[in-house]
Amino acid sequence: MLYLVGLGLGNVDDITMKGMAAIQKCSRVYLESYTSIMSFGLDKKKLEEFFDKEIEEADRALIELDYNIILDEAFDSDICLLVVGDPLGATTHTGLVLAGRKAGVNVEIVHNASIINAVGCCGLQLYRFGEIISIVFWEEDWRPDSYYFKIAENRKRGLHTLCLLDIRTKEQTTEDMMRGRKEFLPPKYMTCSEAAKQLLEIVDRITKKNMKPAYTPSTECVALARIGWDNQKIIFCSLEALCDVEMGPPLHSLIIPGELHPMEMEFLKTFPTS
Amino acid sequence: MLYLVGLGLGNVDDITMKGMAAIQKCSRVYLESYTSIMSFGLDKKKLEEFFDKEIEEADRALIELDYNIILDEAFDSDICLLVVGDPLGATTHTGLVLAGRKAGVNVEIVHNASIINAVGCCGLQLYRFGEIISIVFWEEDWRPDSYYFKIAENRKRGLHTLCLLDIRTKEQTTEDMMRGRKEFLPPKYMTCSEAAKQLLEIVDRITKKNMKPAYTPSTECVALARIGWDNQKIIFCSLEALCDVEMGPPLHSLIIPGELHPMEMEFLKTFPTS
Repeated sequence: MLYLVGLGLGNVDDITMKGMAAIQKCSRVYLESYTSIMSFGLDKKKLEEFFDKEIEEADRALIELDYNIILDEAFDSDICLLVVGDPLGATTHTGLVLAGRKAGVNVEIVHNASIINAVGCCGLQLYRFGEIISIVFWEEDWRPDSYYFKIAENRKRGLHTLCLLDIRTKEQTTEDMMRGRKEFLPPKYMTCSEAAKQLLEIVDRITKKNMKPAYTPSTECVALARIGWDNQKIIFCSLEALCDVEMGPPLHSLIIPGELHPMEMEFLKTFPTS
Repeated sequence: MLYLVGLGLGNVDDITMKGMAAIQKCSRVYLESYTSIMSFGLDKKKLEEFFDKEIEEADRALIELDYNIILDEAFDSDICLLVVGDPLGATTHTGLVLAGRKAGVNVEIVHNASIINAVGCCGLQLYRFGEIISIVFWEEDWRPDSYYFKIAENRKRGLHTLCLLDIRTKEQTTEDMMRGRKEFLPPKYMTCSEAAKQLLEIVDRITKKNMKPAYTPSTECVALARIGWDNQKIIFCSLEALCDVEMGPPLHSLIIPGELHPMEMEFLKTFPTS
């Protein structure tokens, strides 16, 4: 049996009792280590202590290319893969489940909270959200803005947009990659302030083309940091003001609201503006 | 302190370790009892045994009208309100948090999985979903179809639509209500088959008006029952075929997919068609 166990929002005690029981009976426990978690707060050692179990890191290569190693083990013993959030929030884990099914391996999912539903803590109603978007780090010569049009579509329908902000872990310089050196750049997490600046640059381009912008610098938005953590921070301010707000350590997310119900607005006004 | 603790998808062991610890230190534990759970599987007694704690039911009147009783208690002692899914999935609990904040009561949210993210278990990617809709039971003289247009908007953009199906608990006959009798009708849960029939009746009306329908009887959809339970069931078939599919006990949900990525399609094809 292969258990895909969601770790929830990032504290060791966010694990469910069902997840805890699954871990205990597994002969091997992998931790999906190429997303967000390893660099702040929740590390392998803390999890090992809490679960009283040895944990092995599973990097992208193991899960996306050499996953047959995991499936072979899961064929005749109980194996666990720990994933931050809900286990099926990312395409790559869906791919693993599919490969497992095809190989005749039993797969069980142990669900948990993820930013997609925990975002309700800012008072916006989950059924008033439209398509989720991802805002990626721009490079010198690659400054995509396709997500702008998704925000525009959502706002046209009065819907809120949850913006997930880019995470870059285990990235290599071209030189290190060419030389096959296992050296990695420090992880990079997009901040709310960086996201706000990109959103405003895009809307600047739009306005220059004489198109009606989907939002303006004065559009009020919700900045979220470390949701579900003890030091969670939520700010409600204009996009322009957000450019100068320091939200602290990762992970950050951002919401561009659509039409606000009076109770949603009342709730948002309980948050500080800086 | 008022703890709003999510119970997750409906098994006792879906509680998180953090939620479990919060319950243990509370002098009073309420269970929000007017949504889905009390009638199947997860009842107060099972939770009391699992948590080794006495639990009181909190009905709609207590949470929506007399909530000051809860807030007063939470002002100087630790009180817990258990909610199925994530605690802020429903407007009513957001209202309670807001009222608590205004009254100067500390409120802590303990997040958990809800259908909104657990739905990823069918292989559809969460970032490809549009606005969530609710399909309500039709009455003789009240047959709303406004949600059709939300499905249509989602499909136009290639997005999947998660349809939450109606739940009626603690409903009274007009006579019992008038006489102030505390007698309730048996709870009613909409099935996938009922939802499919309504969706097809609406599209029939649309077609008769010579409008291009957003879906047809042959549109393939995903029927889900008891997600996260041991007897979870997922079916992938046409809306027409779904009218005759028996999904078993509640809760049911339905997805009308938008454009399918090859991996999503491959995943859906692993599910039975009846």
